[in-house]
Formats: sequence, structure tokens, C-alpha cells
Amino acid sequence: MRETNNPAMMMDLYELTMANGYFLDPECQGTKVAFDVFYRRNPDEGGFAIFAGLEQIVDYLVNMNFSAEDVEYLRSLGQFDERFLHYLENFRFHGDVYAFPEGSIIYPNEPIITVVADITEAQLVETEILAQFNHQSLIATKAQRIVRAADGRAVSDFGARRAHNNDAAVYGARACIIGGVKGTATVLAGQRFDIPVSGTMAHSWVMLFEDELTAFRRFAGCYPHNCILLVDTYDVLNSGVPHAIQVFREMQQQGIRSRSYGIRIDSGDLAYLTKKARIMLDEAGFTDAKIIISNSLDEYTIQSILAQGGQVDAFGVGERMITARSEPVFGGVYKLCAVQRGEHWEPRIKISDTVEKTTNPGLKDVYRIYNDQGTAVADLITIAGEELDLEKPYRFIDPIRPWKQLYLENCTAKKMQFPAVKNGERCYAPEKLSDIAARVRQQLSREVWVEEQRFQNPHAHYLDMSPSYYEMKMELLAKNQ
Amino acid sequence: MRETNNPAMMMDLYELTMANGYFLDPECQGTKVAFDVFYRRNPDEGGFAIFAGLEQIVDYLVNMNFSAEDVEYLRSLGQFDERFLHYLENFRFHGDVYAFPEGSIIYPNEPIITVVADITEAQLVETEILAQFNHQSLIATKAQRIVRAADGRAVSDFGARRAHNNDAAVYGARACIIGGVKGTATVLAGQRFDIPVSGTMAHSWVMLFEDELTAFRRFAGCYPHNCILLVDTYDVLNSGVPHAIQVFREMQQQGIRSRSYGIRIDSGDLAYLTKKARIMLDEAGFTDAKIIISNSLDEYTIQSILAQGGQVDAFGVGERMITARSEPVFGGVYKLCAVQRGEHWEPRIKISDTVEKTTNPGLKDVYRIYNDQGTAVADLITIAGEELDLEKPYRFIDPIRPWKQLYLENCTAKKMQFPAVKNGERCYAPEKLSDIAARVRQQLSREVWVEEQRFQNPHAHYLDMSPSYYEMKMELLAKNQ
Repeated sequence: MRETNNPAMMMDLYELTMANGYFLDPECQGTKVAFDVFYRRNPDEGGFAIFAGLEQIVDYLVNMNFSAEDVEYLRSLGQFDERFLHYLENFRFHGDVYAFPEGSIIYPNEPIITVVADITEAQLVETEILAQFNHQSLIATKAQRIVRAADGRAVSDFGARRAHNNDAAVYGARACIIGGVKGTATVLAGQRFDIPVSGTMAHSWVMLFEDELTAFRRFAGCYPHNCILLVDTYDVLNSGVPHAIQVFREMQQQGIRSRSYGIRIDSGDLAYLTKKARIMLDEAGFTDAKIIISNSLDEYTIQSILAQGGQVDAFGVGERMITARSEPVFGGVYKLCAVQRGEHWEPRIKISDTVEKTTNPGLKDVYRIYNDQGTAVADLITIAGEELDLEKPYRFIDPIRPWKQLYLENCTAKKMQFPAVKNGERCYAPEKLSDIAARVRQQLSREVWVEEQRFQNPHAHYLDMSPSYYEMKMELLAKNQ
Repeated sequence: MRETNNPAMMMDLYELTMANGYFLDPECQGTKVAFDVFYRRNPDEGGFAIFAGLEQIVDYLVNMNFSAEDVEYLRSLGQFDERFLHYLENFRFHGDVYAFPEGSIIYPNEPIITVVADITEAQLVETEILAQFNHQSLIATKAQRIVRAADGRAVSDFGARRAHNNDAAVYGARACIIGGVKGTATVLAGQRFDIPVSGTMAHSWVMLFEDELTAFRRFAGCYPHNCILLVDTYDVLNSGVPHAIQVFREMQQQGIRSRSYGIRIDSGDLAYLTKKARIMLDEAGFTDAKIIISNSLDEYTIQSILAQGGQVDAFGVGERMITARSEPVFGGVYKLCAVQRGEHWEPRIKISDTVEKTTNPGLKDVYRIYNDQGTAVADLITIAGEELDLEKPYRFIDPIRPWKQLYLENCTAKKMQFPAVKNGERCYAPEKLSDIAARVRQQLSREVWVEEQRFQNPHAHYLDMSPSYYEMKMELLAKNQ
């Protein structure tokens, strides 16, 4: 399995058939183009998404190359010109990439990443950019929903065994951390990304020994300072919790003051069982024993358990977070928006029957607009380089309701894209995962309306256009209809 | 990204905390145990699932080792004994693995894979075995549903960009082929597994040129013999199809007899558009032009399009197959079923409130039982090594309805597990992917009731028990209650 990770070949074949075609066409070869990465709908009918995966995208772009075996394989397909295959042998990405910072709160239809490069290069990198963007943004967004539901209690990722193979477990764990999860059970993710790892025992430990009490005693002997006992192998309230209490008493009698001890419940009616278990532990004097629960948790089951008064200190969340089970597809796309002709950039548009599916053409800037309290009131698309004077009242055009006369004043604007790659070279330092996670927390606590953060029918963030940008788009639509 | 693929470290931390505990406990160290891999429910309320991933599991087990860096990382966690870390430095898997052949039709609650090994080794391999089993079986099962709906028409995998990262795209493509898909767009999967790859053009090709007709002409110039034109960039019926026909005419006039040409439609009302496009192509004399469709297809949309008379030659299926969107979790588990004590194997059981969630204890054999027409009428669990005499009427016990007196005669029985790994060495030759896919086809066409193959309320395959096995399980339940 070690040989699979060659992301240069991680692409749809049509990227290569098109690239071969562009390369051989004298009019296309060398043409500079711009592609935007954007998505159209927030997962789970949420109010926003979280951008994740930029680090892997940049790493891929600056290192991308084809091995001799790769080229030999492509030659064997019998559809590529020798000149193109030779070009691939020496391939390197020379383009520019502009992107939102990783961990940004993002909204539909705005360009999160823009790739400006020779058409051949820009085409070849589509699939892997989308795969990283879609997967990691999907999981970060889902994880943050689960963290929100846990309302301050710790959430850990337990998902590796149900992830869609190894990369999904490892990069999924990374995305979970960006979304606010505290740690992972996945050792490889801990090793790669310096994420806190945790884990104690499974049912097999309890089943191996002659009885539950023996199993618990042996575990406490090995791990007195991280002694979370799994109490649901036989019967939580009649066997598991009483045996756990007995072992905690024995530890106490031996003078062991455990730094971290308690129980985990992995099945049954978790709201009911945690309330009963809490009472049993408290009555035995173990008020600082932790109760951890797991088993098919997500934001909805967690909200429900807490609403019923469930007594939970931490959640172990597996399959429903690592697969984003309720909506496992993040529909990011990579669309051509502009083509350079001489000094001029011609905008390009993909038309659709529905207004929302028609792309936003041309080179553009995206701003996040803040009111005087620092709350993000809208995002704004302008023509690239357009002057933005927010000192005077400025007209924002809502492209879905363009007749509305919305003027804002006393706002500040933050340009959302920064140059991440210039001429094929990384132009910013890799960020620490904990800093990316902090960016998410900071935006949600200070900038994003709470009305955008609720699960039911959240406020839809405005994506407005400058008057000049809107006019350009309308002209292009009129011309292409 | 190249460094991530170390599947030895692809495990939950608790495998290591338990293994460290077993290793240090003189009573546990060296104890031989058996774990069963099974699942509890068919995805999408289907009648069966397809087993995939065995090749990767065996490859992992026979090559598994920890690098010096891995051990150093584990040491840095500060919770493992030095003797255990030293053991990991020299780790090799020495156990035995019995498994269904890859591509077997499988049913809930039967042991698909059984690992017999030292408890420490058996525990350490849990996560990766489950991750491969769950992911690949999930996608193979979903793909086969989609192939069934396509009713003889070709299905291709277009899913890489929406897969849950690179491994999910690559191993997912492999699983799609096992499920009956004809080819993939994912180049890396084609290269790794010798899968046919296909792909022609995206909207970006059409948008790059001044107009659609020019774009089509240029493409036909490059690829006259694989000329599938994407016709929905601007307007399928008023622009895309007429321009395609014009280009096909020009090719004809130039004397080019294309081996493969036609159109692809990627948006809009696919049933309606394909019928109209077929008429337009036929009236222009291009009756052998192919119509390929894509865009959020799955077994239900494909059935619906075909039921409406949609004219489709092939389907490109993306996100809903590669993520198994309707149910993206395959709930395979790894449960301790027996522990060796001297010469004797003690059965172990995990009890649950629901009968179906209680595990099947002990070392066992699984048979598929065929009637005299060669149809698989039930699967049967016996005690390992139990004599099975099907010459006389044999009582099958349905564990959910044990009072039923079911006797079968004139049946044949096939033992489903074969030895895949012995003493840590592979003991069968790797199978060709096409042979595994053929195994699926053969079972579905000859052995599996059509009643198990329908989407709505399929017949539930019987998983019966031999009288001795059932008695053993009941005794164990009585003892543990």
C-alpha cells in the first residue's frame, strides 16, 4: 500500500486529454487562464462552511512531478503525443495561487482559491485541488457542528475504522482539529500533525479476562493515571459501573490519586445511563470521575442527550464525523473564469438555467465587510483591483435581488484571498494546525452572527457584488444568451 | 503528502494501550485468541453486500512493521513500557487469517474474516483491517447497486474529486470495479490496478475557445477516435447538440470513421434531453453516436431515467458512488470470539439488549448451502470442525425463530472461509481484479435469488446455526446473564 501516494497521478484522465490538446494547439499553448474554486451550498443546510486543506494543496503544487513510470504508463494508453509526454517528464507547476487563509469561514459562490497559470498546468491540477478542498472542508465543517453541539465539552475523533480508507482517517483527523475537536484516536494522524492522541480500552480487553472485575483491575494496574473503564460489555448499571466503582475504591485504598479516571459507555440509552451512572459515582464519592460516551454520535444526538440532562464530560465521535454521514459530499468545483488575451483578461462564464448555478466570471477580489462592532455583515465581489471606498455610502448589489438599494457606510473591508503560491513557489510559511483551529474559533466567537451558527434555518450570509462587477456579469450573460 | 502512507501506524491508540497491557501481563502474553470481522446490516436496506479489500488487508499484515521513527513517536507519548516499545521495533505479524474470497456475496452477522493470533498481534491489526474492509466493501456494494440499475449499460467511475481524499479515490475505484463498473477516470487507480481509464473533456475546454463550435472542432481534430463532446456548457438542444452534429458531419466529409464518438450531457433534465438528443442525432444519420450522461447519478436516478425512456449508452457516476452518499458507513466490527486455554478454545460473547447485536461466540465454520439448482438457500454456522452430513435431512436453526423445525435435504455446502495467511505468510496468490469482479457477476447470475437482488424490501438471506452451535451459544448466554 505504500506506493499509492503519488498525488501527481491523482487526476481524472480528461485533465490529461485536455492538457494534451491545449499543449498541441499553437493558439492555446502558453495561454494564461484563471480558475476559481468555489462551492454552491452549505452542507446540512448550515449557515457557513470551514475552509480546510490548503496546506496539502500548496504542498502538492510546489512538489508536483511525474516519474518515468508515470509517463511510461501514460504512453501505454496510446492517446498522448510524444511531445506532450516529454513535457510531462519535466513538468513543474509555475502558476500563482490566491486563497483564503485555511480555517476561514466560507460561504457559497465566492472564490475560495484562484489558480492563475498556463492552461495546461492549470488543467492538470484540478482533480487533486478539489479532492483536498472537498474532503477536508467537508470534515472540518461537520466537526465544527459537532463541537458546537457539545457546548464546551471535549470532542475526540474515534473514526479511523469507518473512514473511507487511510487518507480519509488521517486528513479527516486533521480537518476535525481545524473544526475544534480536541484530539484523535488515530495514531498516524497524531504522529503526522502533532495532534493529541487518546484511547484506553475496547470490549476485547474486558472479554479476554475471566470476568469484568479482573479486567478492570488489570487495566487500573497498567494505567492508574489514565484509567477510563469501558462499562458496557455485559450490563452497564448492574455490572460495569459497580465494578468500576470497586476498582476506583481499591485504587484509593492503595493511595493512588488518579489524574484522569472514569468510565466510557458505548451502547444503550446514553442519556438515561449517564444520569444513573453519575449518581452512582457521586454517591460512592467519585465526583471527579469522568463520564465519556461514544456510539454513533453526531450534533443531533449530542444536543438531544444534553437536552435530556445527560451527564457527559466528553464525547468520542466516530463514523458520523469522519464520513460526514448526514451529507458526505462537499460539492466544490473548479471553473474557468478568465482567459488572458494580450494584456487583457477576458471573462468566461458557465451558464445554467438557474441563476445560482451560473458562475461568477472574470478576475475578481473578494472582501469580507465588517460593521463597526466587527461583525461580518456581508461578503463582496468586485472586479480585480477595483477601488473600494467605504468612507462614503457604498452600494452593495445582491445578485438574487438586484433591485434592492442597499447602501452601507462605516464599514471596514478585509480582502479574503492572499497570495499562497507565486511562480510555482510557496510564498507563506506553513501554519501550525493549532493556529488554524484558533482562527476558526476566533471568527465564530467574534465575527460571525450567532444567527448564522444555529442548526435550524440559519441566516444566509449575503454575497453581494460591486456595481461594476454586477454590470460586467450582466453584459456577459446578455452576450451569451 | 507522500509520507503519510504508513499503515502500521494507522490504528486507534487504544490498540496500543491494550497491547502494551497484554504484553506486560504474564497471564495474557502469548495467549492465542480469535477475532471475527462481521457486519450487522446491509447498506441501503439491500439484500446483501460484497466483500472487498482482502488483498490490501493481506498485503498489510504480511508487511507490517514499525520504523524507528514510529517507535520514537510512541515513546514520546510517555505511556508505554520500554519492553513493549522494543517488541514493536521487531514486530511482525505471525498469525493466521481465514477469509471469504474477495468478491464474495456476504450477509450480516457471519464471520467474513477470522484472525487467529497472539492477543497482542491480533489487537494491533484491528483498525486497519476494519478500515479496508469497511471502505472497500461499502463502495463495492454501492457500485454493484448502480451497475444493476444501469441494466447492462456501462457505468464508469468519475468520483475522484468528491472522494474522501486520495486513498478513497484509488481504493474506491478498485472497489467500483469489483462491483461491476467498467472503468474509472482516476488515472492513479488505472495505473495501480490495471483498470481501463477513460475521459474526454470538461466545460473548461469549451469555455477556453471563442465559441462552442470552435472548441468541438479542435477536440475532434485531436481525438477523432474518442470524440465525446460535452454539450451542456451553454444550451444542450439549441447549441451543444447542433454543434456536435455539425462537427460529426465535418469528420464524415473528411472521411474519418470514428471508432467512438458521441455526446455527454452533465446537467439539466437528463431523461428529456437524452430523448431529444437521440432523435436529433438519428435524424442527422448518426445512429451510432453514443449518449453518455453524468451529474449526481445513483441507482435511483438511473432507474428513473431509464423508466422514462431516457436514451443512454453509458453512465459516468461520481460523488454518489465514490462516497456511497445514501449510506456512507459500512459498520464492520472486529470482535473477540475465542481465547485459547491450554488445548481448549473458550468461546467469548459480547452481550447486548437486542438478540441481533449479541455476537456469535467461539471458533466456527461458515457454509453456504445450495439447493439442487445451485441456488444459495441459506448460510450456516457450525462449531469449527463439526461434521456436516447433508445426505440425511439436516436441521437448520434460525436463531431469530429457533422454534421453527426446518430440515433440508439434497443440499450441498460450500465452506466459505479459506486460509489466506498462515504464520504471518500469505498462502494464496494475489487475484486479478477482473477475476474478483467475475466472481461477483457469477454469484449474482447463478447463485443468489433474484428476490435478494431487488432494491425494495429484498428477501433476507437466512443465517442459520447447526443444533450444536446454537446449543453452545445458548449455554454461554445463560451463564453470562
